[in-house]
Amino acid sequence: MLKKMADMIRFLCADMVQQANSGHPGAPMGLADVMVVLAKFLNHNPKNPNWLNRDRLVFSGGHASSLVYSFLHLSGYDLSLDDLKNFRQLGSKTPGHPEIHTKGVEVATGPLGQGVANAVGFAMAAKYAANLLNEPENTIIDHKIYCLCGDGDLQEGISYEACAVAGNLHLDNLVLIYDSNNITIEGDTSIAWSEDVKARFEAQGWDVARIDGHDYDQIEFALEQAAEKERPYLIIANTRIAKGAGELEGSHHSHGAPLGEEIIKAAKIAAGFDPERKFAIDEDVLIRFRAALEKGDLAEAQWNKKVENLSSESKNMLNALLNPDFSKINFPDFSGKKLATRDSNGVIMNEIARAIPGFIGGSADLAPSNKTELKGMGDFPNGRNIHYGIREHAMAAINNAVARYGLFLPFSATFFIFSDYLKPSARIAALMSIRHFFIFTHDSIGVGEDGPTHQPIEQLSTLRAMPNFYTFRPADGNENALCWKAALNLRAPSAFVLSRQGLAPLEKGEFGGVENGAYLLKRAQNAKITLIASGSEVELCVKAAEILAARGIGANVVSAPCFDLLCEQPREYVDQIIDPATKVIAVEAASALEWYKFADEIYSMKSFGESGKAGALFEYFGFTPEKIAEFAQELAK
Amino acid sequence: MLKKMADMIRFLCADMVQQANSGHPGAPMGLADVMVVLAKFLNHNPKNPNWLNRDRLVFSGGHASSLVYSFLHLSGYDLSLDDLKNFRQLGSKTPGHPEIHTKGVEVATGPLGQGVANAVGFAMAAKYAANLLNEPENTIIDHKIYCLCGDGDLQEGISYEACAVAGNLHLDNLVLIYDSNNITIEGDTSIAWSEDVKARFEAQGWDVARIDGHDYDQIEFALEQAAEKERPYLIIANTRIAKGAGELEGSHHSHGAPLGEEIIKAAKIAAGFDPERKFAIDEDVLIRFRAALEKGDLAEAQWNKKVENLSSESKNMLNALLNPDFSKINFPDFSGKKLATRDSNGVIMNEIARAIPGFIGGSADLAPSNKTELKGMGDFPNGRNIHYGIREHAMAAINNAVARYGLFLPFSATFFIFSDYLKPSARIAALMSIRHFFIFTHDSIGVGEDGPTHQPIEQLSTLRAMPNFYTFRPADGNENALCWKAALNLRAPSAFVLSRQGLAPLEKGEFGGVENGAYLLKRAQNAKITLIASGSEVELCVKAAEILAARGIGANVVSAPCFDLLCEQPREYVDQIIDPATKVIAVEAASALEWYKFADEIYSMKSFGESGKAGALFEYFGFTPEKIAEFAQELAK
Repeated sequence: MLKKMADMIRFLCADMVQQANSGHPGAPMGLADVMVVLAKFLNHNPKNPNWLNRDRLVFSGGHASSLVYSFLHLSGYDLSLDDLKNFRQLGSKTPGHPEIHTKGVEVATGPLGQGVANAVGFAMAAKYAANLLNEPENTIIDHKIYCLCGDGDLQEGISYEACAVAGNLHLDNLVLIYDSNNITIEGDTSIAWSEDVKARFEAQGWDVARIDGHDYDQIEFALEQAAEKERPYLIIANTRIAKGAGELEGSHHSHGAPLGEEIIKAAKIAAGFDPERKFAIDEDVLIRFRAALEKGDLAEAQWNKKVENLSSESKNMLNALLNPDFSKINFPDFSGKKLATRDSNGVIMNEIARAIPGFIGGSADLAPSNKTELKGMGDFPNGRNIHYGIREHAMAAINNAVARYGLFLPFSATFFIFSDYLKPSARIAALMSIRHFFIFTHDSIGVGEDGPTHQPIEQLSTLRAMPNFYTFRPADGNENALCWKAALNLRAPSAFVLSRQGLAPLEKGEFGGVENGAYLLKRAQNAKITLIASGSEVELCVKAAEILAARGIGANVVSAPCFDLLCEQPREYVDQIIDPATKVIAVEAASALEWYKFADEIYSMKSFGESGKAGALFEYFGFTPEKIAEFAQELAK
Repeated sequence: MLKKMADMIRFLCADMVQQANSGHPGAPMGLADVMVVLAKFLNHNPKNPNWLNRDRLVFSGGHASSLVYSFLHLSGYDLSLDDLKNFRQLGSKTPGHPEIHTKGVEVATGPLGQGVANAVGFAMAAKYAANLLNEPENTIIDHKIYCLCGDGDLQEGISYEACAVAGNLHLDNLVLIYDSNNITIEGDTSIAWSEDVKARFEAQGWDVARIDGHDYDQIEFALEQAAEKERPYLIIANTRIAKGAGELEGSHHSHGAPLGEEIIKAAKIAAGFDPERKFAIDEDVLIRFRAALEKGDLAEAQWNKKVENLSSESKNMLNALLNPDFSKINFPDFSGKKLATRDSNGVIMNEIARAIPGFIGGSADLAPSNKTELKGMGDFPNGRNIHYGIREHAMAAINNAVARYGLFLPFSATFFIFSDYLKPSARIAALMSIRHFFIFTHDSIGVGEDGPTHQPIEQLSTLRAMPNFYTFRPADGNENALCWKAALNLRAPSAFVLSRQGLAPLEKGEFGGVENGAYLLKRAQNAKITLIASGSEVELCVKAAEILAARGIGANVVSAPCFDLLCEQPREYVDQIIDPATKVIAVEAASALEWYKFADEIYSMKSFGESGKAGALFEYFGFTPEKIAEFAQELAK
């Protein structure tokens, strides 16, 4: 029966790819045997894909999406056979790579390695949830995290980073199944890959089993062992790519293109299936899979009873995690205080953490510089400060999963320049519209002596160009707090881009507010110029406006902590803060080209930075009130 | 004597950081003992930092820059004691992290992990150089690559990726010295790092030795062993951070801040040095280090003789590598051919490879899709096609070093979306102004069914925002060839952003050329509109202009394959191709905000893409001639 179930999945996947005339049949067919056995172990409820204590199943190789969809349909999730037939079509629930608008998909995958790090993140979230919610005689969080991955996932550095974190934290709830088929797109893996994967994972503190991924007994035995493990567990399943696909079995040509009608028919015949039936699902197979419905209902009902039996303290905690109440946050008043925004931000984050128990995270080994330590709140997994190590990319992907877990609001911190290292995961955060807070300090040439390798130039533009991602660069402590208020209310990731150096506090603005992305900070008589700036350059523009005023040239100053939010404002608002009758200059110690959307001229960095004292660099690159005023005066002529 | 040499380096470094009141004393002091022994092994010529057969020395932990500069000064490189005193000051030869304008610095380092991958790249370049140039009885390339790295380097995924490549290729010329001091910025490494590094590297096919990094005999013995190795070689040197710094020895507080005058004085006293002398270099120590000058001269002179004895064939090859002659490239004529630009690009690259023997590279396992195979030219190290595996980040950092080696013009290929994975290394390529060609195919929603995880949106803006980096997005085969001509003549990295789908060939332009970044492709009578586009959108704009013409609205069309080059043109040129009297619309199936620099309106992507057929997506997101024409017509009113 398992063989029939697996073959039926194989041909469903092959038919989906064939019908779409696009897709990846090889991995799904190679993994079908593992999938049918894993389905027996999986504790989930297809009727409620959000059940908190479900096992998480991550398909890191997102190109195996037809396998995901076949599994979800067969198990009784809200995904019809018509959805399967609509594979990879515009507007379908079955896109080319899994996305979270499809019920049952835990996390969007596709870019390789991300899913492995996501699985580590789910395992970490579960550990911390268990720490907060489980009671001695009543464990409400005790599920597993399963992740299927391939050669590509394990070659990517992000998976190495994430698995190091998993090993260090002894994540015994994590089961990684490696589809080892020795095939990549350019051919046999040996052209680029000859490491001993078992030894690698053991070196990182994992338990490892190696099995024949087409032998049901071996698969079952290996999965049974998972219950006994005290460390993260890798199952290396030796498979044949496109298993059952006749001449294409074992060939890299089966990876990313339809097999072809003739090969599919021959394969169906060889497996004892009707070659003319497409998208065939036999009732006996379906019954087996759909057993998940009843089993899931029962499991969730039993779990609900356990939740009822929780102490009121734990119930309150669960409620606070599920429904974070931002009105409880005591945002500090920084009026009159000269502070680096990394410092004000640290104070704010500690206030948020005090009010919101699900606010957790850490830095890629820069917490003392990023000022992101949650004071007195302990180290993960017993506390909320996570030490990710020098692993920016894994940190961000881990926290994407922590956010998707359903209870937490994670933050990831590093120097702004190293946002480059984690960008692929920030993008997936945006694609999934999750609240994931990126704390990026040391935001410009203000970094100073560390020099151009550490001074961001193009990073603001990079983040602003990304859809559904909000980048905040506050100019003082009070703006910083208002940025957090705005960010917490978004259903999207956001970044805080913060200064290393102290910034003077701003006076109260004249019109509009931070929640609009930009506001009129200072209005001049007979303004001929508008200076727009963010972060450390706002203070320079205020002083430049004073110089200009002394010379009889009126200059308004707009503080713009969030370009992305400003872009969402109606024209009328924009015109009220950026007077269309003025010459508009955007001032940022960054590349800043996107400001041309609102500005006539950009006063910005045209090159990489230099190593030197921060003050010397601002002078050298022209970021002084006097030089900005000169530029504006020239333009006002 | 070694002890005295090492201590003198220690205090030089401590004094440099103290004088700058900024920097990282811990790593240099911890590594000083290794450094003085390594100096004896190093085969180099301080008078000629470009000698081809020198050993390459890479400091992956670029924060140990004071150690780099101390070593270079002591060895007799063009770096004075005054330069050392000017450490970390604007305009100095001794910036906060090593940069290549300092003679003797092989590669810019600082962002962690990059240097390890650079070292792998140098080792690969040396292997291929040896393959091209060495003769049975006359080996002119036989040097080693030494790399010093720390915990941070090895935690970063890029180092894991690169070391996997090194192991797979049996790079026996590579010696990686790991400064294992168990300290990172957040504290003891154990908070985030508990792997068995020896086992990890052995799993990747390396030989590993473990030594006391303060025991000269052990260091010497370990380095002697390097000559015998048949695989890459890791020396784990157990050290104490800030060794010799009294109470700060072993403390993470010594990592990134000056030790303080008092601690330095006490340390000098403890080591038997005069506490009042700063930047002290005793003659006996200097003589030992400066022996490198005579030794280097002799080595290079002997080597020059070997070069003289090369066959004329090998001499010609060496000359061709040192002086690539681009006039020999037979650029194809694609007139009238409808081709995907990834296809035209593959044809062009093969022509370049035929003419330029130093043109080497490959793809991160996507060569069949990127169309980057150099046909009939074999696989690395015997041939020019390098299989990097699914390791974009390591690929790019490896090729940065291949470019810096002095003989090669490397290329790195992947899908455009995965440019995110390698961005940190692309940035360092730009910082170093090296010719490194990035081939990014599958450039927009034209990717189609693979969906939003695989469809670039913000990537063009990301690359364009980066200083000193040139991004080409040709609209047809002939533009593609002209882009290559422009790129080969730059002293900077460039990217080719190429379509998956076929693009119609353009007619001859009317004014200007690709070498200017943009040119006037079609001029209309009484133009009211200018449409600027790149890549696949140019064809749409040509058709939109025809629709507009039929409606009596003149629309010029500008093809803009390189935004970066356009930005460098004088105002007069820009005004000649973009008529200031017209309403200007930039059309790109990307984020494209930077086009506001030249355009009144942007017709672009405002969201992530979708999974579906490419044609359906272009329609859905409004990228059709009719919809572009409608938008323009509205604006022309």
